[in-house]
Amino acid sequence: MPQLRKDPIVGRWVVVNVENPYLPEDFKIKPFHWKGEEGCPFCPGNEQLTPPETGAVAESNRKPNEPGWKVRVVPNKFPALMIEGGVHKRGVGIYDMSNGIGAHEVIVDSPYHYKDIAELTIPEVEHIIRAYRSRSIDLRKDKRFKYILIFRNFGQDAGASLEHGHSQLIALPMMPKNVKEELKGAQYYYKFKDRCIFCDMLAYEEDGIRQEIVSENEGFVSFCPLSSRFSFETWIVPKEHLTDFGKISDNQISHLAAILKETLHRLKKVLGEHAYNYILHTSPVNTDEYPYYHWHIEIMPKLTKIAGFEWGSGFYVTFTPPELAAKYLREVEIVNL
Amino acid sequence: MPQLRKDPIVGRWVVVNVENPYLPEDFKIKPFHWKGEEGCPFCPGNEQLTPPETGAVAESNRKPNEPGWKVRVVPNKFPALMIEGGVHKRGVGIYDMSNGIGAHEVIVDSPYHYKDIAELTIPEVEHIIRAYRSRSIDLRKDKRFKYILIFRNFGQDAGASLEHGHSQLIALPMMPKNVKEELKGAQYYYKFKDRCIFCDMLAYEEDGIRQEIVSENEGFVSFCPLSSRFSFETWIVPKEHLTDFGKISDNQISHLAAILKETLHRLKKVLGEHAYNYILHTSPVNTDEYPYYHWHIEIMPKLTKIAGFEWGSGFYVTFTPPELAAKYLREVEIVNL
Repeated sequence: MPQLRKDPIVGRWVVVNVENPYLPEDFKIKPFHWKGEEGCPFCPGNEQLTPPETGAVAESNRKPNEPGWKVRVVPNKFPALMIEGGVHKRGVGIYDMSNGIGAHEVIVDSPYHYKDIAELTIPEVEHIIRAYRSRSIDLRKDKRFKYILIFRNFGQDAGASLEHGHSQLIALPMMPKNVKEELKGAQYYYKFKDRCIFCDMLAYEEDGIRQEIVSENEGFVSFCPLSSRFSFETWIVPKEHLTDFGKISDNQISHLAAILKETLHRLKKVLGEHAYNYILHTSPVNTDEYPYYHWHIEIMPKLTKIAGFEWGSGFYVTFTPPELAAKYLREVEIVNL
Repeated sequence: MPQLRKDPIVGRWVVVNVENPYLPEDFKIKPFHWKGEEGCPFCPGNEQLTPPETGAVAESNRKPNEPGWKVRVVPNKFPALMIEGGVHKRGVGIYDMSNGIGAHEVIVDSPYHYKDIAELTIPEVEHIIRAYRSRSIDLRKDKRFKYILIFRNFGQDAGASLEHGHSQLIALPMMPKNVKEELKGAQYYYKFKDRCIFCDMLAYEEDGIRQEIVSENEGFVSFCPLSSRFSFETWIVPKEHLTDFGKISDNQISHLAAILKETLHRLKKVLGEHAYNYILHTSPVNTDEYPYYHWHIEIMPKLTKIAGFEWGSGFYVTFTPPELAAKYLREVEIVNL
């Protein structure tokens, strides 16, 4: 019989297929059809194909919008939201409307067209995370913004329209619904227990009661949460209780780079090349403090389609139980990462 | 500049691309690659390939599990939930768990492998809706169930694993998160205004203030809500304030069949063959009454991929503004439907 498990933060139920679990080969993941570097706006030498950059990780003698960068940040050419103007909220009948103020930036992860984060070196991944931090700190100076969302789509099935590895950042003038829900859930737990729910999730795993840990290092734990929505969903959570990703230290950036690369490497070894999203969950900016929140990254492989059941109910069906997924991921042999 | 619009029921923001709207041809929808009828468990003559039927619309002299049916209802061969047993809820650390009790049925829409609802006759569509009603009434007799979700996935991109047109029904032992959110939003509005929010949405459209109506008949209105998540999203809402789909009258079934077929026909004329989900939103069963709720159908074409922005924020990006989508859909000439 399948098991129903409830996410302790937002109260989402998932149906976990514990009796006939999908093994990695059961997903029949098709290899990517790479289009190639020609005309890629993110490849070095094609800097003129993007809007002028808002940031870069590069040697100090490099000129903007020229090659030689390690990470490059540019405004999205087709932004979901526009940076200029005031926030004008108004009512239209029973609907609330606002103009589409916001920032939408692209973080080009590396100069290499074909390399995913799993294939970059740890220092190269550190550059990406450093770009996330510096853009998050810079954009929050704009007091219109309430939330800074950093995420990454890799592969067509995860919604990536360009194949050269890149992350995205969207700064929003209102707190998004999903963030509100998470904050509310974390607050509720905090009021009840006087503890952070994410810390408790980690403690529960680290006590050795559960078997969902994939790996850990000095700063972080990666694990497949018991109530995963997606098969092989993996979270990376800082061991220390920290609410705001923007305050990450240089030392922690090194640990995060190492575990992020390692986790994506493990996923790729087990599943082969596959589409995935990852999302950096962090506390809102320019507003109250959220002491009960705990920033983290959620990696969501896109191996199956979302259909009417999920859309209609908010339930998810997890074909590979997280305890089994974690076993597969743990068993990947790591040599010279 | 894009517009931000807020769904008045659940508070979900959508980014509507009002300046550079996608026209139907911009979605580059690929025609389906049909696999064909061979080995199809839903084609007449192959009844033995499914579990024994739980219902059918057929002549009274037909024997169960033989051809001659118009609509056939069978348990899902790979059910997300199992029908047998009691509901056992328990805590595991900080997680809530339950055994996976529920019903998961497939409603085979017609004997025709290649016909979507748009190609069926109105009486044939009436048979499908009648099957929805009778299964809903039958399954709610089982007091373990709190919600009966009816939905339809059409096309691979909408998560349909079999191409022969079919709907699905899942009976759940708990109220799903998405339903709770909708009920809560509708209740909040009702308390504030002493009116149903869905009735107000319809009134707002019908006053001619807005331009999102696609079509209407004696019993129903179809329209593209101002805060649509998806391009060409279309809702079908009964004009009369009714909370429970299960209480639909025979007369209303005729009107619903006509407008459902017509709406799907319009969508197909404008977009070509495309993947979509539809979901029947209705009030819970075996529990309190929900006088403020209003059942309806939400049709969601799957023309673009959901990516990190949507997953992380709960925002959606609507590439075709609903007022434009409705115009396209309205302008389809209807002859001899």
